[in-house]
Amino acid sequence: MRIAALQMQALAGDTEANLARIERAARAAAEKGADLLIAPELAVTGYGAGATIHKLAEPANGAIVARLQAMATENAIAIIAGFAETAGDSVYNSAVFTDGTREPTVYRKSHLYGPYERDLFVPERPSAVVVEHGGMKIGMLICYDVEFPENVRRLAKSGATLIAVPTALPASDHAAFIARQMISVRAFENQVFVAYVNHCGRDPLYAYAGLSAIAAPDGSLLAEAGVEAEALVFADIRPVDFTASAEQNTYLRDLVT
Amino acid sequence: MRIAALQMQALAGDTEANLARIERAARAAAEKGADLLIAPELAVTGYGAGATIHKLAEPANGAIVARLQAMATENAIAIIAGFAETAGDSVYNSAVFTDGTREPTVYRKSHLYGPYERDLFVPERPSAVVVEHGGMKIGMLICYDVEFPENVRRLAKSGATLIAVPTALPASDHAAFIARQMISVRAFENQVFVAYVNHCGRDPLYAYAGLSAIAAPDGSLLAEAGVEAEALVFADIRPVDFTASAEQNTYLRDLVT
Repeated sequence: MRIAALQMQALAGDTEANLARIERAARAAAEKGADLLIAPELAVTGYGAGATIHKLAEPANGAIVARLQAMATENAIAIIAGFAETAGDSVYNSAVFTDGTREPTVYRKSHLYGPYERDLFVPERPSAVVVEHGGMKIGMLICYDVEFPENVRRLAKSGATLIAVPTALPASDHAAFIARQMISVRAFENQVFVAYVNHCGRDPLYAYAGLSAIAAPDGSLLAEAGVEAEALVFADIRPVDFTASAEQNTYLRDLVT
Repeated sequence: MRIAALQMQALAGDTEANLARIERAARAAAEKGADLLIAPELAVTGYGAGATIHKLAEPANGAIVARLQAMATENAIAIIAGFAETAGDSVYNSAVFTDGTREPTVYRKSHLYGPYERDLFVPERPSAVVVEHGGMKIGMLICYDVEFPENVRRLAKSGATLIAVPTALPASDHAAFIARQMISVRAFENQVFVAYVNHCGRDPLYAYAGLSAIAAPDGSLLAEAGVEAEALVFADIRPVDFTASAEQNTYLRDLVT
């Protein structure tokens, strides 16, 4: 399976512009043979849109997801993108998977980061959302979720072979450590692929770290974006390339709890 | 607290030579002001001594631990070292902490690696063995144990601030990944210090990777040994140097399971 990661400079609060950006990326990714496009956390609303996010939030059966679904259908590519989801009185920091044919699958973030997110969103209980596509079992996490080894382990135990992680990692002293070293270790310690897809640039509230990466089960990086610029990076995900690693590093089989 | 890590070329099956090597290191470490010396997994028997290990195994109240205890007393330094422990009919892959005054504390490996270890030893159920020394709470793991994030998390949740990991990591394609990237991530994701202390050189069965390292809560390495040579490397463990990291990376507080 070929996956495309869209490192994106979202426009805070401009859903139309951001959906158009994702649509262009879906077309470009499909033209290069990708089976899946992954966009960042809250890619649809922008991450730093503050309270405006509540006004832009929609239910999973609303127009935003329908629009993503239509893009998937039109370009014959699956899409994972972050959006703000309403459900009853609650607003979740969610990501949707849609392949344009089946019912979309929604994952809600369980580990909200800091007061900004905790003011805006309700956390979901940790869950293992896994969907099959292109021969892979794709598990979803969002940003801070992946920094907890427990969350990746839960998905791997549920059979996930690729973890898609829309993220909004701000620039900081430890951003590169998280985006590179930690993501590689998460892949290695579970013998899965991990796609970590970040924002870049700035919005009114945050500057982002870029550094989107796709890690393989042996801890190597199959694709990397830089710090500053938007980028659409590709990786061919072939489990058969990593059978030696899977045979040597039998963590899931050996774990005793 | 100053800790000293002894990257050691053990002599397989020669307990006397290995204890003498540890004793020299204890003296040298104490002379440089260290409060704790850490030696590798099965440092006393050698790792690759095969079935001979069963003949050299002793109970925790036997002569080997008594000898380590005497070294600790004489040099006024605590010692952690790997040894083969008998208890009833069982043989464990263990590590002992002794400060020369209190009763020694023994940790038994829970995650045995591969058929070699599983033929020789009985695994202990995963446990949190934590001992206070020099203002730190020291948790113990052995080699493969630390590659499972669950084991480090268990100790951190039990209050450990320094994880001492005697190890016997063989040379391999992924040895540097484990000894550097993974050890740094274990430290960062728990905001603890991790001392990973390996063998070097060869014995009849294995070639070792060296690369002993002491990682800090921010993921940086405070001390590193090379691949091939014996080394006694030091690090000053000062939690106060990492309060900014602890305040920014509040994993233990934020984890939801």
